[in-house]
Amino acid sequence: MSERFIYFDHAATTPVRPEVLEAMLPYFDKKYGNASSIYSIARESRAAVDEAREMVANAIGAKSDEIYFTSGGTEADNWAIKGIARGSADKGKHIITTSIEHHAVLHTCQYLEKEGFDVTYLPVDEKGLISPAQVEEAIREDTILISVMFANNEIGTIQPIEEIGEIAKRHGIVFHTDAVQAVGNIHIDVKKLGVDLLSMSAHKFYGPKGVGALYIRKGTKLASYIHGGAQERGKRASTENVPGIVGMGRAIEIATQNMDSYNKKLLELREMTIDKVLATIPYTRLNGDRDKRLPGNVNFSFEFIEGESLLLLLDMAGIGASSGSACTSGSLDPSHVLLAIGLPHGIAHGSLRLTFGKDNTREDVEYLLEVLPGIVERLRRMSPLYERVKNREE
Amino acid sequence: MSERFIYFDHAATTPVRPEVLEAMLPYFDKKYGNASSIYSIARESRAAVDEAREMVANAIGAKSDEIYFTSGGTEADNWAIKGIARGSADKGKHIITTSIEHHAVLHTCQYLEKEGFDVTYLPVDEKGLISPAQVEEAIREDTILISVMFANNEIGTIQPIEEIGEIAKRHGIVFHTDAVQAVGNIHIDVKKLGVDLLSMSAHKFYGPKGVGALYIRKGTKLASYIHGGAQERGKRASTENVPGIVGMGRAIEIATQNMDSYNKKLLELREMTIDKVLATIPYTRLNGDRDKRLPGNVNFSFEFIEGESLLLLLDMAGIGASSGSACTSGSLDPSHVLLAIGLPHGIAHGSLRLTFGKDNTREDVEYLLEVLPGIVERLRRMSPLYERVKNREE
Repeated sequence: MSERFIYFDHAATTPVRPEVLEAMLPYFDKKYGNASSIYSIARESRAAVDEAREMVANAIGAKSDEIYFTSGGTEADNWAIKGIARGSADKGKHIITTSIEHHAVLHTCQYLEKEGFDVTYLPVDEKGLISPAQVEEAIREDTILISVMFANNEIGTIQPIEEIGEIAKRHGIVFHTDAVQAVGNIHIDVKKLGVDLLSMSAHKFYGPKGVGALYIRKGTKLASYIHGGAQERGKRASTENVPGIVGMGRAIEIATQNMDSYNKKLLELREMTIDKVLATIPYTRLNGDRDKRLPGNVNFSFEFIEGESLLLLLDMAGIGASSGSACTSGSLDPSHVLLAIGLPHGIAHGSLRLTFGKDNTREDVEYLLEVLPGIVERLRRMSPLYERVKNREE
Repeated sequence: MSERFIYFDHAATTPVRPEVLEAMLPYFDKKYGNASSIYSIARESRAAVDEAREMVANAIGAKSDEIYFTSGGTEADNWAIKGIARGSADKGKHIITTSIEHHAVLHTCQYLEKEGFDVTYLPVDEKGLISPAQVEEAIREDTILISVMFANNEIGTIQPIEEIGEIAKRHGIVFHTDAVQAVGNIHIDVKKLGVDLLSMSAHKFYGPKGVGALYIRKGTKLASYIHGGAQERGKRASTENVPGIVGMGRAIEIATQNMDSYNKKLLELREMTIDKVLATIPYTRLNGDRDKRLPGNVNFSFEFIEGESLLLLLDMAGIGASSGSACTSGSLDPSHVLLAIGLPHGIAHGSLRLTFGKDNTREDVEYLLEVLPGIVERLRRMSPLYERVKNREE
């Protein structure tokens, strides 16, 4: 057992930055006013929410009245997709998405299929990429929405969003992107991208859990999803989560300021990990595109092992990692993303996602590279198949 | 201008208790693991969420697997009502509710009406009460849901929930109650009440904003509302808001322990306020039932004045109060609750809600009683109608 804990699962969630927590704290117990009330402490809450909205807008090149706070990325995805579906059902019932979306998108689309919507799930290539041409070919008369994720949460693949945006615009179809893994991690400018709806989540960039936002381009007609009070300009009811919103604003502000140095560092850790792991552990493949991927993401498949056991042994060695999405853990099914890029069930099971973050160092990665080969070898020795392959080699 | 600020708007929101904030803090930056991951810090998050669920369940007499965390009371209301509507549409499309529900219920019902559902909005009497008989009479063959709020957010009226629960049960109809103003403030036992679905919100009992829960009685078939990952036993997707959930658990635990002394104190402040205000300010009426009301709620209508101006002058005197629901502020319409209990538009406009809380003292109320008559008189002097009435009297 190791004394220290090294966290390599920043795609699952990140710790709240000290500066972010500090910004949030007064709004729990001192400036606790309901942002929709009118007296002094309530006006302070309102001002703080407005300021945070401005910060989020600035970070993605939006106007502040295009930002709507939600309870997280999942709600933002649900709102975007169901909001267009419900609001445009007279125009058509066809939605285009991809087979490697997060379940927040996939399960929402599957739910709409039961309601009579028709969904095209575009296949991806072996790197996890879709092509703009595929999207264009899938467009029909009755297509009301294109939803393509910005960067994949498992294999980090970054899609050609700008090109898809152009196609969507040309055909007059609303374009949503689940940018939960991208916002706060890589540069995003909605003006350039041509997206109409963009989902984000604060806890993916050192902000708090339980808060996210949906960017809604001005002029995009979107039905409300949570009905009730007049919050969020009448579009998303519920008492404003003032500390959470303040935290999201501060977190995205810092993330934007630090982005270039942050990405440089992550890229270094990523490349070092990919090079060493592929060189030292046989029967290993890197999942996803080598270059068109998030700077902090690596995803390997090790033949002849079970991902779950690998995670347990890494945990015992003081390393926190993941086999894929945290949102599907507990499920015994292999990742739908790894199956979509063509991995057989057996290999998809033996996958490891490492996602680096701000506190990770070269030493952390060196420690990983020190323990990982032994752990993989130990698990492989339990596999009769591996023994056969080894014996054949010898 | 007063130096100190006296907060009399606890129905709008409450400050987070120091003990609650303390319980939450580690989960922002130290124990930040995603509760759905599998390594050490993630298992700590999972355990904390489970413990909080147990606390919430204990507080309302439920089992912990009947508690589902949400982003707040509004989402819980939306989920309960739309979840039954979508899941039971084959059985019927009729919903019974009241005309004084919070907008989280009313606007959700109005939305469903557009989708073809038929909603009966029961009228209330001049105290804001509905009778169980009214509910029973409204039941039809195709009734799928009865939704009656536990305690009204504006006038504090407590409805005969247990009796309505019996009727719902007898007719085999799902019964939902929006208990956002009640949970953590008065004793609630779902076993006694016969409710199937109950909405709650942490920030109404000194917990954080942005977190709530829906109680779903075992066996109640409810469609999911937010689709995605497998969180909340597959029923409510989104990364768990661990600090928020921990805060909600701790807050409800403390609220339950303190409830009797808390209510005794609030009752004292309430009765003192009602007695004095009615005795010293003419042309004033108490809205809502004198006894069947939340211990911390008073709601007055002062003839010949505008509620908004009253709030501004109270704010200048260092008192935070409300004219009704915080969720509808910004709207110039008079409260739908006050109209429903029969107040004319003019009088409904001049209403004042004071909701007391744990830090309020007799001295705070004495200060209010000192400044309020002068403020009311000052505003009335601006009303030509008041002048005429006064002149007639003299």
